[in-house]
Amino acid sequence: MQEILDASAPSDWRVPDPKNTLYLDLDSGQVVIELAPAFAPAHVANIRAMAKNGYWNGMSINRSQDNFVVQWGDPAEEDKDRKPMGRGTKPKLPAEFARKSDGLPFDRLPDADGWAPQVGFSNGFPAGRDPATNTAWMAHCYGAVGAGRDVAADSSNATELYVVTGQSPRQLDRNITLVGRVIKGMELLSVLPRGTGPLGFYEQPSQRTPIRSVRLAADVPKKDRVAIEVLRTDTPLFTDLVESRRNRRDEWYKHMAGHIDLCNVPLPTRAPPPKPVKPATAPKSKAKPKTKKR
Amino acid sequence: MQEILDASAPSDWRVPDPKNTLYLDLDSGQVVIELAPAFAPAHVANIRAMAKNGYWNGMSINRSQDNFVVQWGDPAEEDKDRKPMGRGTKPKLPAEFARKSDGLPFDRLPDADGWAPQVGFSNGFPAGRDPATNTAWMAHCYGAVGAGRDVAADSSNATELYVVTGQSPRQLDRNITLVGRVIKGMELLSVLPRGTGPLGFYEQPSQRTPIRSVRLAADVPKKDRVAIEVLRTDTPLFTDLVESRRNRRDEWYKHMAGHIDLCNVPLPTRAPPPKPVKPATAPKSKAKPKTKKR
Repeated sequence: MQEILDASAPSDWRVPDPKNTLYLDLDSGQVVIELAPAFAPAHVANIRAMAKNGYWNGMSINRSQDNFVVQWGDPAEEDKDRKPMGRGTKPKLPAEFARKSDGLPFDRLPDADGWAPQVGFSNGFPAGRDPATNTAWMAHCYGAVGAGRDVAADSSNATELYVVTGQSPRQLDRNITLVGRVIKGMELLSVLPRGTGPLGFYEQPSQRTPIRSVRLAADVPKKDRVAIEVLRTDTPLFTDLVESRRNRRDEWYKHMAGHIDLCNVPLPTRAPPPKPVKPATAPKSKAKPKTKKR
Repeated sequence: MQEILDASAPSDWRVPDPKNTLYLDLDSGQVVIELAPAFAPAHVANIRAMAKNGYWNGMSINRSQDNFVVQWGDPAEEDKDRKPMGRGTKPKLPAEFARKSDGLPFDRLPDADGWAPQVGFSNGFPAGRDPATNTAWMAHCYGAVGAGRDVAADSSNATELYVVTGQSPRQLDRNITLVGRVIKGMELLSVLPRGTGPLGFYEQPSQRTPIRSVRLAADVPKKDRVAIEVLRTDTPLFTDLVESRRNRRDEWYKHMAGHIDLCNVPLPTRAPPPKPVKPATAPKSKAKPKTKKR
């Protein structure tokens, strides 16, 4: 895989839109989430507004259930003294479990999947698709971020967000609104001590992990934004990368699987390579200027 | 699912054989592993001997790679001053990647799988099977325990053991010897800080997690053994349980998946229910004795 990445061109990578990039800051470091307005426009709009309002600042991660999810939000969520969502938010949102697949980019995997008629990637998000119903939806792979809800399908308002930290719970696909995925810092969430209450909620407030802030990258001064690029999923290089993982050809492997699961496909990120620096004086070499520097 | 378990009979449960039960004791608590001699007899024999010799006592967990595995063994494994495996062990073992499926119990799932022609459970272990080649193998689900190896297929000797802590890396199936699975205490392994060296190895010895001891239950006095029962996978009750997870019928679910992945099937354990105690004198109340209390 590394060989393939080393051979990548700048055009094989993309920079997530700051309007769709969320920073979750913990004492242990920063988690970066890419939001998916193509799948959950109403939830993403609420998340953007709540981040601007500082809604989650000072709240906590209240749940960590082994081999399943972590979840954050207002611990007083059920009470009447819960924190107001603030300006620009909607108290009630539609369920955004799936959308029309017409018009949605979809880089399909040829591999069989038990949960969906077709699987692939849409702008880098693992997704399922059903041509029979013209629908597509994000898939609950490791790192998927979703909006907790009650029994009613339209009972999520994006105040409570969860992240998948265990074996892909694909039974949740089309049952709950996913809003994006973690692109950096998963290891800060996956190691959180498991809660011992029902569903992995912490029994003592002191066991919760404090949230310093949740901010939209677009609301953060440019100099303070995280420099990160994500590998595109709509390129021949990505197809090669998937094949290199589907059938491992290195010496260690004795049996080629001939298959890869949607949630086993790596989605590499990187710090952008440094820009070439122009020397202060005219170079003596005849090297051509790089026209595609980033 | 809880309703189904509540209706279980004692015969739906089994007690793991102490000869096939390994205790991994950490400062944070105890991990219990069930060994699978039906799949890896030579590796399990070495593990039993090494546990008796106290081979791993005082060693450490040296690796934690996010969304993949933790691994323990002798940090000096590559060096000439590595610890001897001791009495009753074999320095070299055959690869035990798969075995003949003839004669092996196999509780087959009807669900499709991309990695194996058939999947199911063999004495409680998630497994794949290929009738065309008359082979069966354990599957790399969450909690699977395997024996690290070098490039040569027969280079594992069971000194280095790993546990799957992430999305099921089924590409390893039939490529490495699995020796069993964790039946208790996964949450002690899954939260270990991720190592920052290559492959998730810790860069500093101080970051490793010390191992107090690794013992075979059969070598531990009966009074000190863990009382644990595992749900059988060869019963109608288990079939019902799987179906209750394949198609969730509670109010919360709006879309029934119609599928379950091998590695999403829960494998419940419990502390054995207390034996019914005969009252010393006849009870005065007319309350019915609770025969199934837990």
